Amino acid sequence: MSTVTFHENILRNFTKSVFIAIGCSDEHADIATDVLLASDLRGIDSHGVARLSGYVRLWEKQRINARPDIKVVHETATTATVDGDSGLGLVVAPFAMKLAIEKAEKYGSGWVSVRNSNHFGIAGYHALEAVKRDMIGFAMTNASPLVAPTFTTERLLGTNPMCYAFPAGNRAPVVVDMATAAAANGKLEIAQRAGKAIPEGWVQTNTGDITTDPHALKTGGSLLPLGSDREHGSHKGFGLSATVDILSAVLSGANYGPWVPPFVAFLDPLPDLPGQGIGHFLGAMRVDGFRPVEEFKKHMDHWVDRFKSAAPTDPQQPVIIPGEPEAEAELERKETGIPLAKPVVDDLNELAAKLQLQGLQY
Amino acid sequence: MSTVTFHENILRNFTKSVFIAIGCSDEHADIATDVLLASDLRGIDSHGVARLSGYVRLWEKQRINARPDIKVVHETATTATVDGDSGLGLVVAPFAMKLAIEKAEKYGSGWVSVRNSNHFGIAGYHALEAVKRDMIGFAMTNASPLVAPTFTTERLLGTNPMCYAFPAGNRAPVVVDMATAAAANGKLEIAQRAGKAIPEGWVQTNTGDITTDPHALKTGGSLLPLGSDREHGSHKGFGLSATVDILSAVLSGANYGPWVPPFVAFLDPLPDLPGQGIGHFLGAMRVDGFRPVEEFKKHMDHWVDRFKSAAPTDPQQPVIIPGEPEAEAELERKETGIPLAKPVVDDLNELAAKLQLQGLQY
Repeated sequence: MSTVTFHENILRNFTKSVFIAIGCSDEHADIATDVLLASDLRGIDSHGVARLSGYVRLWEKQRINARPDIKVVHETATTATVDGDSGLGLVVAPFAMKLAIEKAEKYGSGWVSVRNSNHFGIAGYHALEAVKRDMIGFAMTNASPLVAPTFTTERLLGTNPMCYAFPAGNRAPVVVDMATAAAANGKLEIAQRAGKAIPEGWVQTNTGDITTDPHALKTGGSLLPLGSDREHGSHKGFGLSATVDILSAVLSGANYGPWVPPFVAFLDPLPDLPGQGIGHFLGAMRVDGFRPVEEFKKHMDHWVDRFKSAAPTDPQQPVIIPGEPEAEAELERKETGIPLAKPVVDDLNELAAKLQLQGLQY
Repeated sequence: MSTVTFHENILRNFTKSVFIAIGCSDEHADIATDVLLASDLRGIDSHGVARLSGYVRLWEKQRINARPDIKVVHETATTATVDGDSGLGLVVAPFAMKLAIEKAEKYGSGWVSVRNSNHFGIAGYHALEAVKRDMIGFAMTNASPLVAPTFTTERLLGTNPMCYAFPAGNRAPVVVDMATAAAANGKLEIAQRAGKAIPEGWVQTNTGDITTDPHALKTGGSLLPLGSDREHGSHKGFGLSATVDILSAVLSGANYGPWVPPFVAFLDPLPDLPGQGIGHFLGAMRVDGFRPVEEFKKHMDHWVDRFKSAAPTDPQQPVIIPGEPEAEAELERKETGIPLAKPVVDDLNELAAKLQLQGLQY
């Protein structure tokens, strides 16, 4: 697919102008922009500026509040629940992570469950805020229901990502940032565009049969949990996704399971919601709450080096350390710019026209 | 396979007598017994009294210290590192979980990383100690290396289980207690005894080829991470297992990766170990640190009921809620007793003879 490459700062200015245009404060526009750009810089193209027009459509439907009054509604020394007041998750989650980090600075650890929020971008962004301060970061969120638990044909869970991030010394931070489904929706979209079949084990039809049709979600099919089927441990993927749902939403008072409001603006939330908005869960633990930071980092580097030097199955393909490809992409894209697929650029320029903003020049 | 059924108390008395015989204090013998029996009661037959002779063999090799001086070596208000002094993990992990719970009582949450320990039984036992006190429980441990990360033929990780446990109201607690491998070793043993092939996706040969041979581990093969192969997300299973390894061992100063000492006494630990013993990570968060307990439990019951009522793929097989089969087994086995496979009974009676104890009568 043809792409157009933009310097990071061009996309930052453009993205910020969009958030300002929908009414965000300068501070909120800056932070929401930073979350989206981090995704593009780290090579996770599905979760960056490509989603900008999706957020704006939710604002148009009045499902996103551009001027939220984000509040702590319950807390102890090291725990809290935050109400995001229907704000952008891109703003609400950083508020909650900042609170978790402040608690960790004082007491060793901090944990914040969030309700009444929206899509928060990549989990890794939030967890890495802790890593910058020599803490271990945790971030998870529930999401629109697309995944069927083991033994059912109903979509009851989102791709519910969980992220654990660890500082290292000379190596890149180890960042485990993963959807708890076998494959996320973005992979189906790639197969759809290419007109290709998908592997067995990603999707089932509306009757629970395994299918290789990348369009099966459109006819009532569902994504499968990590593990794909019971024999290969899909009950574990279900359990992980359930954990994300409970920590993010049952704990905070957000919507859970099939009631999580859809990310796409053309689908309305279900009636009789049990909670408010979508939920997140964020946490931070100080490394020096357990052992001196330098000792930990030395052993992290040793851990990374041992795994990287493992005997490869295929000599052309060494072991990939979680977080390393993203750290490498970030270094490279800060230099060479961010390539956007042409349809994404067109979509952003349509958005600019609608909001009477300057489009992206190329 | 033929089984013999014993009342829980018969097995408790027998198990305690074994721990006393190897020199454990009365208090330690009680708690180690409680951990093992919880596994048998909950239907997890692989991790209960069937392992007793394995623990004794490690004690004979002087790799388990029956009289450990378990110590907190580093701490903040809500975090700590515990040195298990080579004690039974069955004793060290409960010490650490008690500390996590005490910290949570005072500050909302508590987190303890453990080094210099041994196999801790089922993760669920420890996490459920928090649930009894209306807390959310976390428990994980690293383990002997049997699992090859994605793209390598080397065994660098254990089946590294992680457990998240949540209190409910009228429903059983939701307990997600899972190995991070596609299938744990016990499933291979069942196939070996039955002379059956295993499904593709559990094991690879020493050259990294997928195999259905349940004996492949004996010729240098390895277990595969949850997800089985890259296409189905094995890098996610690898990432989860890495998370367990880092939180349990890099954080505490235990051994990690390929250096985790083997559970079987006939294999010696590697030379030049980077840490001490095996590692665990235990945590507790007060539910009422986030919202009132009764509200949380009401929504947990609602969550469970919604998932249980999901449209089944096969009407004979409803959705299984994580932790529910184990809770049902516990109720049943407390009534009807614990069935042990005949070879397990024989093994326990050989152990009794060796230690000059009264065997199991039947």
